[in-house]
Amino acid sequence: MARAIRIISFIELSFFLALSGWIFSAQKINPHTLREKVRHFREQHERAILGEYFDFLSLPNVASDQANIQKNADFILSMLQRRGIKAELLKAGDSPPVVYGELLSPAATHTIVFYAHYDGQPVDAAQWASPPWKPILRDKTLENEGKEILWASLPEQPNGEWRIYARSASDDKAPIMTMMAALDALKESRISLPANLKFFFEGEEEAGSEHLEDIVRKYKNFIRSDVWILCDGPVHQTGRLLIYFGARGVCGLEITLYGPLRPLHSGHYGNWAPNPAVLQSHLLASMRDVNGRILIKGFYDDVIPLSEKEMEALKEAPDIDEDLRKELGLGWSEGKGKSLVEQIMLPALNIRGIQAGNVGEKAQNAIPTEAKASIDFRLVPNETPLGVKRLVEDHIRDQGYFIVYDTPDKETRLRHPLIAKLDWESGYPAARTSMDLPVSQALVRAIEEGMGSRLVKLPSSGGSIPMYLFKDILEAPSVILPVVNYDNNQHGANENVRIQNLWDAIEIFALLFGYSSYLW
Amino acid sequence: MARAIRIISFIELSFFLALSGWIFSAQKINPHTLREKVRHFREQHERAILGEYFDFLSLPNVASDQANIQKNADFILSMLQRRGIKAELLKAGDSPPVVYGELLSPAATHTIVFYAHYDGQPVDAAQWASPPWKPILRDKTLENEGKEILWASLPEQPNGEWRIYARSASDDKAPIMTMMAALDALKESRISLPANLKFFFEGEEEAGSEHLEDIVRKYKNFIRSDVWILCDGPVHQTGRLLIYFGARGVCGLEITLYGPLRPLHSGHYGNWAPNPAVLQSHLLASMRDVNGRILIKGFYDDVIPLSEKEMEALKEAPDIDEDLRKELGLGWSEGKGKSLVEQIMLPALNIRGIQAGNVGEKAQNAIPTEAKASIDFRLVPNETPLGVKRLVEDHIRDQGYFIVYDTPDKETRLRHPLIAKLDWESGYPAARTSMDLPVSQALVRAIEEGMGSRLVKLPSSGGSIPMYLFKDILEAPSVILPVVNYDNNQHGANENVRIQNLWDAIEIFALLFGYSSYLW
Repeated sequence: MARAIRIISFIELSFFLALSGWIFSAQKINPHTLREKVRHFREQHERAILGEYFDFLSLPNVASDQANIQKNADFILSMLQRRGIKAELLKAGDSPPVVYGELLSPAATHTIVFYAHYDGQPVDAAQWASPPWKPILRDKTLENEGKEILWASLPEQPNGEWRIYARSASDDKAPIMTMMAALDALKESRISLPANLKFFFEGEEEAGSEHLEDIVRKYKNFIRSDVWILCDGPVHQTGRLLIYFGARGVCGLEITLYGPLRPLHSGHYGNWAPNPAVLQSHLLASMRDVNGRILIKGFYDDVIPLSEKEMEALKEAPDIDEDLRKELGLGWSEGKGKSLVEQIMLPALNIRGIQAGNVGEKAQNAIPTEAKASIDFRLVPNETPLGVKRLVEDHIRDQGYFIVYDTPDKETRLRHPLIAKLDWESGYPAARTSMDLPVSQALVRAIEEGMGSRLVKLPSSGGSIPMYLFKDILEAPSVILPVVNYDNNQHGANENVRIQNLWDAIEIFALLFGYSSYLW
Repeated sequence: MARAIRIISFIELSFFLALSGWIFSAQKINPHTLREKVRHFREQHERAILGEYFDFLSLPNVASDQANIQKNADFILSMLQRRGIKAELLKAGDSPPVVYGELLSPAATHTIVFYAHYDGQPVDAAQWASPPWKPILRDKTLENEGKEILWASLPEQPNGEWRIYARSASDDKAPIMTMMAALDALKESRISLPANLKFFFEGEEEAGSEHLEDIVRKYKNFIRSDVWILCDGPVHQTGRLLIYFGARGVCGLEITLYGPLRPLHSGHYGNWAPNPAVLQSHLLASMRDVNGRILIKGFYDDVIPLSEKEMEALKEAPDIDEDLRKELGLGWSEGKGKSLVEQIMLPALNIRGIQAGNVGEKAQNAIPTEAKASIDFRLVPNETPLGVKRLVEDHIRDQGYFIVYDTPDKETRLRHPLIAKLDWESGYPAARTSMDLPVSQALVRAIEEGMGSRLVKLPSSGGSIPMYLFKDILEAPSVILPVVNYDNNQHGANENVRIQNLWDAIEIFALLFGYSSYLW
């Protein structure tokens, strides 16, 4: 009986899918042929692809901006549905929706899920050369004085070196857009899909993925798969394609220290009224040295050392430190001679912002009332946000501070000379997948064969995405596959994406959709 | 011949002055009688006095805002001229004008100059409860939830505890306005003026008095006098009247430290790319401890210790530290048990602002490109801005920094790992007048007899005004006589003045104008 039902479902499904134009016969295609066909399709449709992308990038996408986040989700939903993909919004509580799509193949034995996120980092619009959600093309980077290319004067085939400037042009709408184009190319070229494909596009990654765990738990059976391919972050600084088998965890903290209840004249009260900016500089200096070493007691105790295989992968990675320092105007780098890839295998304490009083023209001869420091910790296996929280709070207490989680009232201030208000973001731990798994090898081979170049393989990304969920809750391996240029200013002002990276990404996704599952 | 001219001038002057309504017979008046008459005049004219003051406070007065500074100068010029005082604008180069007035008495043997400044600190309007240049009356302080009193519902005699909220309501338009009211009161009450009175109102004190030295040198003979009375700052925290015989000098500095040329993702580059906020915290922590002690080598070498008499004056000063800490919500104060008056006799390093990246909602997971710290140093005799500059630069160099004065280009950044850009404000040294001079004693006595209360006498103000000029260039003694309430938020948001302080100031100035010169 169960079998009869399965057959009927199978027939119905095939019928629907035939109508929608997809081909599911598992006829192994040569990866070079696949790539050629996809490239040909793209070359015929570049303006249309960019047009759809500009519309997508015009939607403001800060996770806290509910109305606009919904617009983004609806836009993606309709992108999927227009392509004949069954799609819906997944939610848990009042979370920004996950846009979920699936394209099931009757003959498939493997299921691959593709993850990306459609929300972006908050912007400081004053620092942008053009409005962050008004995408524009430039013929070079802003740093190289790129000039704007007007849409009206856009040629049929824009130059691959041109850039699109907009918030999330790279991080992380680029994978979503190029997956859609890859699907169009496969369908149009009548290349069959041998695997079940699932799409999972998150809407609050930059806000700490607070609801992701709930959503993954809630829809656990729905989104089950053999592997998660997480598309986020930039390719290697050499421009070479890159795969990560892990990611650092992350954990945000804002520390507020207090001075007098009202700003005081720095002449009349200077070196009597406690200055919160001075307190902050001493506290921060006690937490981390200038070389990236965290000075908080016990911070490295939980860290699992790298395996020999992972150490080897690091050694094989291209050495780009010197070039990178030159490009970034850096006469040195942290870590006392350690390389970038070595440094990002370690936990980090990054100060992302400090603020007290005013600087520049607005500076007033006053003692500020408070000083804020915004910090993100990057975690490696086996650290946890809870463990970090405990160590940091112990350290701050050891410096003489009384810790509070709400703004202290006058009574509390009088009772406790030194007070630190801590605002913790929830954060999540790091994770790592073994490089030896068959699926790990298959994904690497599919891309290397199809693209004709070797991937840089790294045990972990320096950046954070919540890989731990897929491992812990779904028991699925996961890898990170970045597609965008590394010099993309992601998270900062003037974020951009290089056109050629979009074109390459379309081919890479087509190889993963139409070829990779033959290899494991 | 010279004598003949003097006689003619004398006759002409008397004639002019008779017309203008002033009386110059040197008939010593009882200070209590004087005060009674002045108070009576004020009680009859409170609305008119406040009306003129509101117009004055409605003029934006940041020193860099040339157009509005000129409006302030013109307003004061016309205030003086309306009262029959010969007045003009003094300038040196493109300085904001000094408004200068003089009222010479034919029989006078003494000349007193009154100094105040009409420019105000820059504002951060977002932090103000009401627009900074739209003066409003409140029935209590904002901290005590004072409600606005509309001008339309203002009684004939406003409550002395009410406050006027506006930039410069205290610092430092209050002395200018109350001197004018005191002149009106003396003229109306037909009280004679026994001394030559000069008025010198500066327009760039809060911007560091850059042109003041040039102006004082240029008009040296013009503004010569027996004593300078500098009206600035607040009265003692007990509310008692206060006279300072000196002032700390001041010297501003902004330090910019550099990270990567563009903001970098803190995950991908965190603990490899140098973080300028981390560098800043270590540099600032190396310069000053949390107790106000400056750690820069040699910083205390030039400091002249207090005399025994000065130490005694400090001991006699009311002890208000505990009350002040309570009011300010401070569980401690800097100086390891030293009192406020002791602490402000020492040099100070105050951090008035720090900024890098973003905090709060705007925090981005990025490594900032630069970190700025805005500092003011407070100097005591015998330190000089040049000496401070040398010591600070030596210290910063000792921390490994290469010092520049303009934004470094990429070449410079690559050549020098650690770079500190320094923007020095010119600043000026401290000064002190002996408490034993006859004129010092006379001023104290005039106020104490007239107001019937003892002054708090302090060797130096913690705040800075350029007293050194009067000593060095004009060879005249100077004292500081504050008149406004101490809880006035001067230099910060929501600056205000207490009405009763204005009323008292009118009587104090009347005593100085009409009585003090009889005493020396």
